[in-house]
Amino acid sequence: MNPQDLIRKKRDGGKFSPSEINAFIKGVCDETWADYQISALVMAMFINGLRQSEQNALTEAMLKSGEVLDFSDIDAPVADKHSTGGVGDNTSLLIAPIAAACGVAVPMISGRGLGHTGGTLDKLESIPNYNVNLSIEEFKKIVKQCGFAMSGQTDEIAPADKKLYALRDATATVESIPMIVGSIMSKKLAEGLDALCLDVKTGSGAFMQQEREARKLAKALVKTGNVCGVKTEAVMSDMNQPLGKYVGNALEVFECLKILRGETDKLSGQTLDLSTELTARILVLTGVCDSIRNAKSKINDVLASGEALEKFRANIEAQGGNPKICDTPELLLDKNLLEVKIKSPESGYVLEIDATEIGKAVASIGGGRFQIDDRLDYAVGYSCDKKLGDKVKEHEPLGTLFCRNGAQAAKVLAKLQMAYKISAEKPSRKFELVKEIIS
Amino acid sequence: MNPQDLIRKKRDGGKFSPSEINAFIKGVCDETWADYQISALVMAMFINGLRQSEQNALTEAMLKSGEVLDFSDIDAPVADKHSTGGVGDNTSLLIAPIAAACGVAVPMISGRGLGHTGGTLDKLESIPNYNVNLSIEEFKKIVKQCGFAMSGQTDEIAPADKKLYALRDATATVESIPMIVGSIMSKKLAEGLDALCLDVKTGSGAFMQQEREARKLAKALVKTGNVCGVKTEAVMSDMNQPLGKYVGNALEVFECLKILRGETDKLSGQTLDLSTELTARILVLTGVCDSIRNAKSKINDVLASGEALEKFRANIEAQGGNPKICDTPELLLDKNLLEVKIKSPESGYVLEIDATEIGKAVASIGGGRFQIDDRLDYAVGYSCDKKLGDKVKEHEPLGTLFCRNGAQAAKVLAKLQMAYKISAEKPSRKFELVKEIIS
Repeated sequence: MNPQDLIRKKRDGGKFSPSEINAFIKGVCDETWADYQISALVMAMFINGLRQSEQNALTEAMLKSGEVLDFSDIDAPVADKHSTGGVGDNTSLLIAPIAAACGVAVPMISGRGLGHTGGTLDKLESIPNYNVNLSIEEFKKIVKQCGFAMSGQTDEIAPADKKLYALRDATATVESIPMIVGSIMSKKLAEGLDALCLDVKTGSGAFMQQEREARKLAKALVKTGNVCGVKTEAVMSDMNQPLGKYVGNALEVFECLKILRGETDKLSGQTLDLSTELTARILVLTGVCDSIRNAKSKINDVLASGEALEKFRANIEAQGGNPKICDTPELLLDKNLLEVKIKSPESGYVLEIDATEIGKAVASIGGGRFQIDDRLDYAVGYSCDKKLGDKVKEHEPLGTLFCRNGAQAAKVLAKLQMAYKISAEKPSRKFELVKEIIS
Repeated sequence: MNPQDLIRKKRDGGKFSPSEINAFIKGVCDETWADYQISALVMAMFINGLRQSEQNALTEAMLKSGEVLDFSDIDAPVADKHSTGGVGDNTSLLIAPIAAACGVAVPMISGRGLGHTGGTLDKLESIPNYNVNLSIEEFKKIVKQCGFAMSGQTDEIAPADKKLYALRDATATVESIPMIVGSIMSKKLAEGLDALCLDVKTGSGAFMQQEREARKLAKALVKTGNVCGVKTEAVMSDMNQPLGKYVGNALEVFECLKILRGETDKLSGQTLDLSTELTARILVLTGVCDSIRNAKSKINDVLASGEALEKFRANIEAQGGNPKICDTPELLLDKNLLEVKIKSPESGYVLEIDATEIGKAVASIGGGRFQIDDRLDYAVGYSCDKKLGDKVKEHEPLGTLFCRNGAQAAKVLAKLQMAYKISAEKPSRKFELVKEIIS
């Protein structure tokens, strides 16, 4: 099976056998396929698509290109969540300790932010000395010890994905559903999971803004996970505004700690709601609870009792951070930041928020990266003082920018202001955080 | 316009503006586009196609990536032919001297054979010392002096095509009609032509075996040529058997010389017929003749008078070959070859000939190349002793293999025999050499 024959087959709309998919992924890993051959096939896959059997084979081949973790020596179900990425989305930092407190082991391998979306690893690194570069051995040890661990991808996990992603990024094939599914699922399935809950976002701050496309992706992810032997569900959630109150690495960790401490700000309500929804799904998928209702009640219990906070404390200590932030979350905040209010130009109701613009504004002052090697300023960020549907008076703050200096403020103020649409009348459209469950 | 934006546009079925096409070809030539980006876009073009305006812009951009010859100082119309490639197709060697004898200047830039199809340059190099590596200056000088010159492509002519072709070959995108049109027409239009006649072949030995596909290509080529200001027509011709009597480099030059000398073998009849048809089209397109009928009569005249042979003699002399082959074509033949007869397994009529298999058999004993740097044995080849529709008796020869030794014969004998289908009854299907004229 030479590269040309395989490329020709998909170019003409043919269907690959598992051994053909394996030959492709083998060629990617052992470099017998040239980059230009890989990119030609990926483009053909993008346009002509993959059928479910091809999708399954691709995911499995990418998964088996590296190591698959084995947690059979842990006496607990193993589960994880994965989000397609959003703005102010810090649910991982809540779900992991809450699920762990409920008796689920969570081996969470995460990524970094790019463009307007944040990344869990960046958020964790805003905790001084927190180490996200664990070896596989350290990672497994901390999962056993604390119930969860959070780390970046190692070279041993799904190496085919790293190569493919770099090429997709350079050849405008990132948005290929078969490739996204292969990329996400090969990495997640490498965690050796029993269950997986996906958070597929749709709306102004989502990777896939259109609900129809997001649903297609959610279905493909769920089907592939289940075929590969992992109980998988997807929650389609709203990303038409930053998820909670904050956007920015340290600010989002602060927000999570406040929630874990039972001091949830009203503006952070959706962060807690979505984390609860996703964790409840995990508890039911793993059989820890027999209904979503019971699972949510259990989640409330471990939050109220402080057990979830204690799980986070143990994890921070195990991964090298300062556990005192659990007692005093304000330790994470930089007092020297300039706070600039974004004022409403008129009285009315918040009709629309362009979450991508808010994400980009924060990234552009150091809160995120546009190139893979940009350095971050963990402290900067944004707080939403009004959210969708909220009433606002003329000159009342819509949000607050936390930045280093006036030049940064000048750079993004207009864009932040433009991100809001205010309407004179109360919006009739009902806000739905969870749009659909795909199972 | 970065590569990703352009790739994304064609990926999603968008239509390029001329400036977008120019940006792509510029990126190919100045290497600001990576190979994997070029191949991703070429695959998107392959699958989603190019509209006529994009096709025109692509051809022009590729043409303008290099030098365009200027024959304005020659007091004759300038024309050429181009064939999509076949087996035993040596019409270029007849058309050039015949057209020149009729008063048309023919600046013929040709290619080499690959796979089962032969190439004009290889055939010419079977003439000892014939130089096909002319500089542009030498090339123009010989056109002026002899009425025609035949040379390989220089780096100055359509350099974008060279890069694109290598990538297309490695990524199974050779058969893309927009790319084929761009490739053929950018090189042909660089010859500074007034008229161009294309020979688009269809059948068992053709690059595009299906008539429907070949017609699509012929129409695209003709439209693009005319839009670019060159009077262009295409002859769709049959390639369901080797064109004339011979397959093999020296043998095909020998066949042409025999024809130019008025000693045409009956089995070479189609070679003469097709050359006459194509040349007649050129004579009418350039205005040298006012009808195909008059053009064919003029062609007969220059053949009968020996003027066409004298043009070839002058050209051979100018390009370094031995002009005595015009008097004694047998000088080209190697007397030391082993001649092996391919015998008919039964009595009947020749119903089918797999011309590709015959081309491959000759190539595999040194008559052609499968890799770009394979060395050739110009003398080896094959003669067709029976052609489509011919009656044949059991054990009567279908053809003769001219090879070096028994091992070569053993390697290809069965394949040659299998290339023929004999039917007991006389085939009812009428053989048509010229299937359609596209203008």
